[in-house]
Amino acid sequence: MRIAVDAMGGDNAPSEIVKGCVKAAREFSDVTLVLYGKEDLIREGLDESLTNIEIVHTDEKILSEDDPVRSIRRKKEASMVKAALSVKNGENHALFSAGNTGALLAAGTLLIGRMKGVDRPGLLGTFPSLSDKRSVFHMIDLGANADSKPLNINQYATLGTQYARHVHGIEFPTVGLLNNGTEENKGSLLTKEAYQLLKDNKEISFVGNVEARELLNGVADVVVTDGFTGNAVLKTIEGTALSMMTVLKNSIYNNGVKAKVGGLLLKDSLKGMKDLLDYSKYGGAVLFGVKAPVIKTHGSATAEPVYHTIRQIREMLDSKLLEELITYFEHAEN
Amino acid sequence: MRIAVDAMGGDNAPSEIVKGCVKAAREFSDVTLVLYGKEDLIREGLDESLTNIEIVHTDEKILSEDDPVRSIRRKKEASMVKAALSVKNGENHALFSAGNTGALLAAGTLLIGRMKGVDRPGLLGTFPSLSDKRSVFHMIDLGANADSKPLNINQYATLGTQYARHVHGIEFPTVGLLNNGTEENKGSLLTKEAYQLLKDNKEISFVGNVEARELLNGVADVVVTDGFTGNAVLKTIEGTALSMMTVLKNSIYNNGVKAKVGGLLLKDSLKGMKDLLDYSKYGGAVLFGVKAPVIKTHGSATAEPVYHTIRQIREMLDSKLLEELITYFEHAEN
Repeated sequence: MRIAVDAMGGDNAPSEIVKGCVKAAREFSDVTLVLYGKEDLIREGLDESLTNIEIVHTDEKILSEDDPVRSIRRKKEASMVKAALSVKNGENHALFSAGNTGALLAAGTLLIGRMKGVDRPGLLGTFPSLSDKRSVFHMIDLGANADSKPLNINQYATLGTQYARHVHGIEFPTVGLLNNGTEENKGSLLTKEAYQLLKDNKEISFVGNVEARELLNGVADVVVTDGFTGNAVLKTIEGTALSMMTVLKNSIYNNGVKAKVGGLLLKDSLKGMKDLLDYSKYGGAVLFGVKAPVIKTHGSATAEPVYHTIRQIREMLDSKLLEELITYFEHAEN
Repeated sequence: MRIAVDAMGGDNAPSEIVKGCVKAAREFSDVTLVLYGKEDLIREGLDESLTNIEIVHTDEKILSEDDPVRSIRRKKEASMVKAALSVKNGENHALFSAGNTGALLAAGTLLIGRMKGVDRPGLLGTFPSLSDKRSVFHMIDLGANADSKPLNINQYATLGTQYARHVHGIEFPTVGLLNNGTEENKGSLLTKEAYQLLKDNKEISFVGNVEARELLNGVADVVVTDGFTGNAVLKTIEGTALSMMTVLKNSIYNNGVKAKVGGLLLKDSLKGMKDLLDYSKYGGAVLFGVKAPVIKTHGSATAEPVYHTIRQIREMLDSKLLEELITYFEHAEN
């Protein structure tokens, strides 16, 4: 399998991207990584003995502040665009980038193209769960769309179910609808209508409404929501976790010797807390509903998250998940 | 000033409600608290020497699982309903409850009534901010409405501005619109349209879009959002904070003696972190846009939050905030 890597996307590109790719290439001999970007910069971090890393030189790149759709259309020599086109053309099988999220969504949708039958691709992410029942849950849509329809949310449920099944090995994953209350009659016009579609969706195990307060307690394997709410929830989790770590650190440093010694003794525990919300070990966010795996990692990703994401893409390709989805949606009536 | 208190609402009613009221009545001699509920139960916790606490006996109460609108209409003898009617009739000036949130919203809107010119009352809450610039921020709507319109969001901005000004003494509070990106062109159909109204609203200092990740960093004094998103964000903050505390506690208890000693030494710091997200010291959530202050505290509230909420209501009444808002909205063109 061949994975096209945008080596120039992200805050630490290309050095950390290359480092993560080298680690993955060493471990997975069945994967060929094709790195798109400035050849001389990429070569600096490369292990030349690896035969499963290739380089395609490009001079241009998409910046984080570039307008997504315009940059995809105009910067035809950009590393992300050339990598996306290689997937469209069948030279490579999946696209990976840590760069401009909007541009990657546009590249996935406009260059690689939607699966037939999927109206709006959604962004799926994997998060830790504190429940004994499950160690992770998946949430979709994290913000590929600002305005989702009930039909879109129902399709996210099918996509999320297949992801949990094929990539995380859960045969009958449960699906919850993020809502403002657990009772069936709760919700906005959007979620009430989505609820009815989900109830009738025979491809999924729908468990009803779930509330944001319970997300990290692992109320369901897959949580579906519109892209606007999903984006707000994702960013609230990140912001709250960061704020709490900041408060804790400040109070350790400003409360005298006793607190400092306590902090030292607790170092491992505090690291555990930080790790809880470092979900990069589960890989990146999947733009789901396009014809090939398109995966985004955090712009600040270092070699380790890059490596985990390559591993995740390999699992996706290995599982034939997308082939199954393409067949399913081709025959589904929506 | 006279505050009607639903003494039977909440998990710890009536004992903790009464305890909080006794504390408030002792401190604020200009406030009379009128407690609605079972007289014998209320008397158990009362300090009989206080002349500024009155009791109105009621046998019925609204349960947390009751349907909001139906229970308000049918349980005419319930403590919450009788307390709300006393405000409608002008016997009392504000309504306080820790009970069924939906029922309280219905009581406020249907029994006390909307201010002329406010289409949909919104729920406003006050949260801590880690910024040097401001110690708190206010967010509205936290979920009074499942489907907000651009017009509603614009009215929340005016309401929130007046609250920050009159109750927190900030002359020109900044207002941010919760959105999925900071650029003006970002957002859903709803937030894009709300943005344009907010830009033209002369009553507020609009600072543009703000993201959920930055909320606790205090990006604005007032953050406006539709009730569905606001509810999801509120519950995500609570859920993430609780999960992190759980992980930290577990790792202190399960990592041997070293971690346990560290935990003891850090006790004060950990308490500080817990306090950060205990925003009950700022009072309860205000149902804003009805003719009198209607305030909800957490169902699990103990005496201390009850006391803080009485203090908050006193400040609201003292500031003549609602009179000003009523005059403003009567004359505003929407």
